[in-house]
Amino acid sequence: MMIVMKEGASPEQIDAVIARIESVGARAHPSRGELVTVIGAIGDREHVANLGLEGTEGVDHLVPILKPYKLASSQFKKGERTVLDVDGRRIGGPHFMTIAGPCTVESREQLLDTAHVVNDAGGQALRGGAYKPRTSPYSFQGLAEAGLRLLAEAKEETGLPIVTEVMDARDLDPVLEVADVIQLGARNMQNYTLLTELGRAGRPVLLKRGLSATLEELLMAAEYILKEGNEAVILCERGIRTFETAYRFTLDLMAVPVLKDLSHLPVVVDPSHAAGRRDLVGPLSLAAAAAGADGVIVETHPDPERAICDGPQAVRAEEFGDYLRQVEQVAAIAGKEMARV
Amino acid sequence: MMIVMKEGASPEQIDAVIARIESVGARAHPSRGELVTVIGAIGDREHVANLGLEGTEGVDHLVPILKPYKLASSQFKKGERTVLDVDGRRIGGPHFMTIAGPCTVESREQLLDTAHVVNDAGGQALRGGAYKPRTSPYSFQGLAEAGLRLLAEAKEETGLPIVTEVMDARDLDPVLEVADVIQLGARNMQNYTLLTELGRAGRPVLLKRGLSATLEELLMAAEYILKEGNEAVILCERGIRTFETAYRFTLDLMAVPVLKDLSHLPVVVDPSHAAGRRDLVGPLSLAAAAAGADGVIVETHPDPERAICDGPQAVRAEEFGDYLRQVEQVAAIAGKEMARV
Amino acid sequence: MMIVMKEGASPEQIDAVIARIESVGARAHPSRGELVTVIGAIGDREHVANLGLEGTEGVDHLVPILKPYKLASSQFKKGERTVLDVDGRRIGGPHFMTIAGPCTVESREQLLDTAHVVNDAGGQALRGGAYKPRTSPYSFQGLAEAGLRLLAEAKEETGLPIVTEVMDARDLDPVLEVADVIQLGARNMQNYTLLTELGRAGRPVLLKRGLSATLEELLMAAEYILKEGNEAVILCERGIRTFETAYRFTLDLMAVPVLKDLSHLPVVVDPSHAAGRRDLVGPLSLAAAAAGADGVIVETHPDPERAICDGPQAVRAEEFGDYLRQVEQVAAIAGKEMARV
Amino acid sequence: MMIVMKEGASPEQIDAVIARIESVGARAHPSRGELVTVIGAIGDREHVANLGLEGTEGVDHLVPILKPYKLASSQFKKGERTVLDVDGRRIGGPHFMTIAGPCTVESREQLLDTAHVVNDAGGQALRGGAYKPRTSPYSFQGLAEAGLRLLAEAKEETGLPIVTEVMDARDLDPVLEVADVIQLGARNMQNYTLLTELGRAGRPVLLKRGLSATLEELLMAAEYILKEGNEAVILCERGIRTFETAYRFTLDLMAVPVLKDLSHLPVVVDPSHAAGRRDLVGPLSLAAAAAGADGVIVETHPDPERAICDGPQAVRAEEFGDYLRQVEQVAAIAGKEMARV
Repeated sequence: MMIVMKEGASPEQIDAVIARIESVGARAHPSRGELVTVIGAIGDREHVANLGLEGTEGVDHLVPILKPYKLASSQFKKGERTVLDVDGRRIGGPHFMTIAGPCTVESREQLLDTAHVVNDAGGQALRGGAYKPRTSPYSFQGLAEAGLRLLAEAKEETGLPIVTEVMDARDLDPVLEVADVIQLGARNMQNYTLLTELGRAGRPVLLKRGLSATLEELLMAAEYILKEGNEAVILCERGIRTFETAYRFTLDLMAVPVLKDLSHLPVVVDPSHAAGRRDLVGPLSLAAAAAGADGVIVETHPDPERAICDGPQAVRAEEFGDYLRQVEQVAAIAGKEMARV
Repeated sequence: MMIVMKEGASPEQIDAVIARIESVGARAHPSRGELVTVIGAIGDREHVANLGLEGTEGVDHLVPILKPYKLASSQFKKGERTVLDVDGRRIGGPHFMTIAGPCTVESREQLLDTAHVVNDAGGQALRGGAYKPRTSPYSFQGLAEAGLRLLAEAKEETGLPIVTEVMDARDLDPVLEVADVIQLGARNMQNYTLLTELGRAGRPVLLKRGLSATLEELLMAAEYILKEGNEAVILCERGIRTFETAYRFTLDLMAVPVLKDLSHLPVVVDPSHAAGRRDLVGPLSLAAAAAGADGVIVETHPDPERAICDGPQAVRAEEFGDYLRQVEQVAAIAGKEMARV
Repeated sequence: MMIVMKEGASPEQIDAVIARIESVGARAHPSRGELVTVIGAIGDREHVANLGLEGTEGVDHLVPILKPYKLASSQFKKGERTVLDVDGRRIGGPHFMTIAGPCTVESREQLLDTAHVVNDAGGQALRGGAYKPRTSPYSFQGLAEAGLRLLAEAKEETGLPIVTEVMDARDLDPVLEVADVIQLGARNMQNYTLLTELGRAGRPVLLKRGLSATLEELLMAAEYILKEGNEAVILCERGIRTFETAYRFTLDLMAVPVLKDLSHLPVVVDPSHAAGRRDLVGPLSLAAAAAGADGVIVETHPDPERAICDGPQAVRAEEFGDYLRQVEQVAAIAGKEMARV
Repeated sequence: MMIVMKEGASPEQIDAVIARIESVGARAHPSRGELVTVIGAIGDREHVANLGLEGTEGVDHLVPILKPYKLASSQFKKGERTVLDVDGRRIGGPHFMTIAGPCTVESREQLLDTAHVVNDAGGQALRGGAYKPRTSPYSFQGLAEAGLRLLAEAKEETGLPIVTEVMDARDLDPVLEVADVIQLGARNMQNYTLLTELGRAGRPVLLKRGLSATLEELLMAAEYILKEGNEAVILCERGIRTFETAYRFTLDLMAVPVLKDLSHLPVVVDPSHAAGRRDLVGPLSLAAAAAGADGVIVETHPDPERAICDGPQAVRAEEFGDYLRQVEQVAAIAGKEMARV
């Protein structure tokens, strides 16, 4: 932590800050410039942060130097990348994974049809929501446990691992019976008690970036999971909120190379929810692969016009194979082998 | 819902949209302009929304006409404003309420000292967190049930009603034993299962706006609570995320008159968390009162330099009385009586 | 400037950075922590910035310590506040100034009527645009020089000083014949050649914050003017762009106390353009005064329904006197005398 | 334009709105729903917009239906894409153009070296700034006319067309002597008088999106140029401002397919200024090409460590050839031929 003093801070004020830093066992290291003095505080970050030095007389502002996440950082693995195994499929490092399926589990027929399309085209995992976070209390909230049972059936039929969302810690047990990867939605990215539970659940977690979360906050959310001993976290960029009204969210593809620089964890992109429109999903998926993503999580539906939820953004099942081939071509240029079994 | 067709949409495409609207029992009402046709869909909003018309051929975009919230809207109460009674203190309409206290319950002495300061100065409720949502898993997470017991003691000593946060539905029972108003934090604004539980808890809820939530989303979160039969919701503006780096969050005081126009619910402002700096809390509190807020929720501490959490933004206890008098003066110009018992 | 090295930067990399800092005559001051080394570079900011150290091997990131503006900073005037005299009216320090008038000069009658309303109510300056920056090339672009002549006439009739906008350096001469304060619009805040011309024009400048400008960028724009020897700059907060769609811009009233902390220059608020709606202008003006603004610049019109531009946000002329009295009452609580002659 | 009335608007209020619409020669077309009435106004957009109906009693809000730009819209060219010829090189439609060079023209040697690197690698145009918009008045502002002369020399030596920026209409004549494409910087995107001059200059314009401009505003800026008879506009996405602090700007690659849907104009991406870091430029360029961009404008420098401006983001000259080959490979998958002569 660097403490930047105000211009004109008095020697007494500087000494008082030094004394407070030393009072928690940290070392103070002042640099006196012509106009301002900067004091380095070397020692335990939390201790120094808890001093609340921002409010102290003569202090202008504080600059944190160390990153607040540890287990999620690239340094923690000394530059090695995490490769996860999801029921025999791999993601991370040279491995690219395509996770596809409907937004919501609607019916047996819809889910099984989609699962076959995904599997036949070479997709590596099946997504589908049984619990749906909805902005409106008047919207369809998902099939809940009945949906989970259909996911289990789809897995049995196709062998595809299942990615599905949990919204409430009280639903974790039934979800764990089905899910190979547990998805945590953007609106729950800072649901700290749920993060802690997922850290204890011993199952890979696909953690979606919050709608206005910084990358540091996303990595801190991952840190909640990692800290409990669960090392299997997949970071997911799914669009952030900006002033632009021409699309639902603004997909932030810079997040891909930057997260891969900051962290050893795999990074996937969800182009469907950002776009909200089918015609953008293809270009955005190619762009995600080109930017170095370790995978995409994308919506596809056999009959989007009749989908209960988010039909307009689903890739048509009959176009899914072509879509996937193009994505894989670009991922190969960006240095990926495909994760096909 | 208005469906705006693309320029050059064919008569067949227009007819197909009309047929789909009528298929769910709604009425279609086309306006044919020189360049584009707009089709009004009159009927159940959810039914029409579920048609997924955005993806249909010839459709450019959809414009919702009706607001998606009902119970939270001004129209629902025909312009009458909700006035809530919190243990004998009132908020809303002509009543202004000051809720004050420490960020976190730290110790018996700290809490009781603060409670007396608040009470003596004329504050109407005591805030204090026992469960603390923290960005870092390495930060202090609150005293939990021990903190709740201290809040109960502070209430007994001073008579001040208690405002405290719940983060997890599994903690709701002990919180309900103490809280007169349950606070739902910004990061949980779209924790839909928790909102539903609060709707059933029969206790006033202070609902903080999410860091990047629109006003419509805030009102939809309120709608989750109201829909379960709990009519006592207080909306809270606490700063939104912008590109500005000179402060933690950007307090959006336009939200105050606009929320009061859109909804009958009381609106309070939290200047402390937006600012993160004590010197801004005074001006922002006056500005909130001037903008027509129904109250403020503000942090004060007897010894901010030793606060475990957010000390730099706490109004010093010895300055709290002066602070409150000025806020009340401005609130009076903006048309408020004070809520003092 | 502090140079934060990466974790694991080698001693050679650290020495290379030190050598480069010293090569431009600055002093290097390294702090070696357990995980990272931070190097303070003490000397000319521009020289060090031009080293491009961000790209150097082993460097993680740079943290500027000194503020990039000098003449605009509070330190430059050692805490004293700038008070400007505009044709006998004062703004800044204890003085509050109300600048009011129509968005656009439309006609002789419209402008003179408004000028009398403003003057009779106690407003201190008349605003009105002769050159209008419009998003659409198909919209009315202002009366140009004919508008300037009407402003001159209004000044002669009422004695009110004139605040009017310049959009192009080539129009500066005719504007200088009329304007007591030259307004620079938000979209031109970083029009650097125009800023430089205004620095040489020897007339007070009302500088509007850009739609997504940070406070630092606003102060750097002021610095362009100050650097040319023009010390008379008024900063204006007029709303920033956010994701919120319920209003045109989000008025950032935190900017008021923060700008007054960072700079000695007067700060005014334009509530009209942010709101776009008359009913919000009152509450926002009161809030601006409460936050400590040195004035407001507000639109009023004798017949808003027939205004060519922005009628819906203009305070009705018949309500202007009441409006102004309330604003002045709040400004007084916030510590202002009124600037009435 | 649709006028949405408030719930509970009276028949008289509705009739008054209809009468005002008809008073400017437009047709009013009311849809009466159960809760609200919506009135379509069919006729000249500007006339109806100028009625200022937002302020009228009983009106809730207005919804524009037609896009405000005409000449820039896809409809204007009936779906055909604009292909521009820049001194024998083509951009748009199937043609991909790489524009590369230093941020700033610094010296004869630097510019000619870079020009040869770009030309030898197969780049199609040379970029380089002679006039530099700088946030700080204390930073290097460019070589001005001396820089233009060096650009002319580089063109003569290599045959590469020149892309260079103009900041002030008064510099347009000398710039026109050298530039094959005139660049308009992000901070000048809404400099309307300069846009109009460029519309009359008869030279292709590379128009950068403002830091917080919407796509609609970008297209309206293009409309200013097109309206004067200049049909040669290239749109450029260069990153928008968000809350994220890990990078300078957030490159918005969704803008690429969406602008290509809305408009017939070519779209290029500037990855360098958004990233500010060399290591991100490669992945972002690939992503831009994958998203369907018609080109990239990228910075390269023979000795980035000694660059006066933005060295850390410049691709090293010795890596430029490899960089370009990868970008072209991805562009080919996205459907482009290369624009090589």
